[in-house]
Amino acid sequence: MDLTTLFKVTYGMYIVSSKKGEKINAQLSNTVVQISPDPATMLISVSKNNLTHEFIEESGIFTISIVSNKCEMKDIGHFGFRTGRDFDKFKNSEYVLGKNGAPYIREKMIGYVECEVIRTIDSDSHTIFIGIVTDAATLNTDLEPMTYDFYRKELHGKLSKNATHYQEEK
Amino acid sequence: MDLTTLFKVTYGMYIVSSKKGEKINAQLSNTVVQISPDPATMLISVSKNNLTHEFIEESGIFTISIVSNKCEMKDIGHFGFRTGRDFDKFKNSEYVLGKNGAPYIREKMIGYVECEVIRTIDSDSHTIFIGIVTDAATLNTDLEPMTYDFYRKELHGKLSKNATHYQEEK
Repeated sequence: MDLTTLFKVTYGMYIVSSKKGEKINAQLSNTVVQISPDPATMLISVSKNNLTHEFIEESGIFTISIVSNKCEMKDIGHFGFRTGRDFDKFKNSEYVLGKNGAPYIREKMIGYVECEVIRTIDSDSHTIFIGIVTDAATLNTDLEPMTYDFYRKELHGKLSKNATHYQEEK
Repeated sequence: MDLTTLFKVTYGMYIVSSKKGEKINAQLSNTVVQISPDPATMLISVSKNNLTHEFIEESGIFTISIVSNKCEMKDIGHFGFRTGRDFDKFKNSEYVLGKNGAPYIREKMIGYVECEVIRTIDSDSHTIFIGIVTDAATLNTDLEPMTYDFYRKELHGKLSKNATHYQEEK
């Protein structure tokens, strides 16, 4: 069995945000798909180790910002490499609080999708959250989405140990 | 709410196959993601209208072939546009039966991932199948995966009414 085949599954790059009371947090993610068309529902898979996981469980909402390939590591890297437990990830980012109270970023982002959790599925190390889309908007129509492949090859983005497809170097 | 924002979510292209007794069938899909790393699990979303849905429910297995961007419409189109109810989709394709009994295609494909269903989640028009990976292999190491965006723009691929992100033209 050659599990490196799984690296050829295609993903985009996203910032998944949520809130807990007055606090906000977000994480970099590639595991975002639409699950059904009408009503539109989105699925994300989040590591139980992540603070955003705790926030989504608590608030029942999340927002997906679609990262464009104009983003550089300085725009998105801190959402992936650091934990929001001891660092305010939004300190140096201009953000907007959406209708659901979670933050999204306008600059260099394609758009955002706000979701309300309708189902939570335990999946060992990760939880699958399925959310119904409650709002969505395109912010920059001229940008193209960043793929995970681009993130790895062009930005030399590293893989978090909490990623859904993490494999130890052999 | 602008649901066209959802078109900017990035997907790859896959042939998802299954079996029912001696019968085999497959469909074109873009909704494939890895959900957790260890054990490796994959998630697919399949329209209840599709014959492959019936086959996966019955056999409890499915195989994902990862489509490369060397594929042309003649290689993959018939998996998307026609139903296996009145047409043998594999008639003109060279295929191999994997360990789980479902077919995969070698030519112009990057590799395949065999899965055994461990969870089935009802999602209105679609069913989410989560499968544990039972086998995987890379077939052509020099190929790059086809993205859904490439399929739409370069191959002028149409969107099935059963797709997870189908929206009526407005």
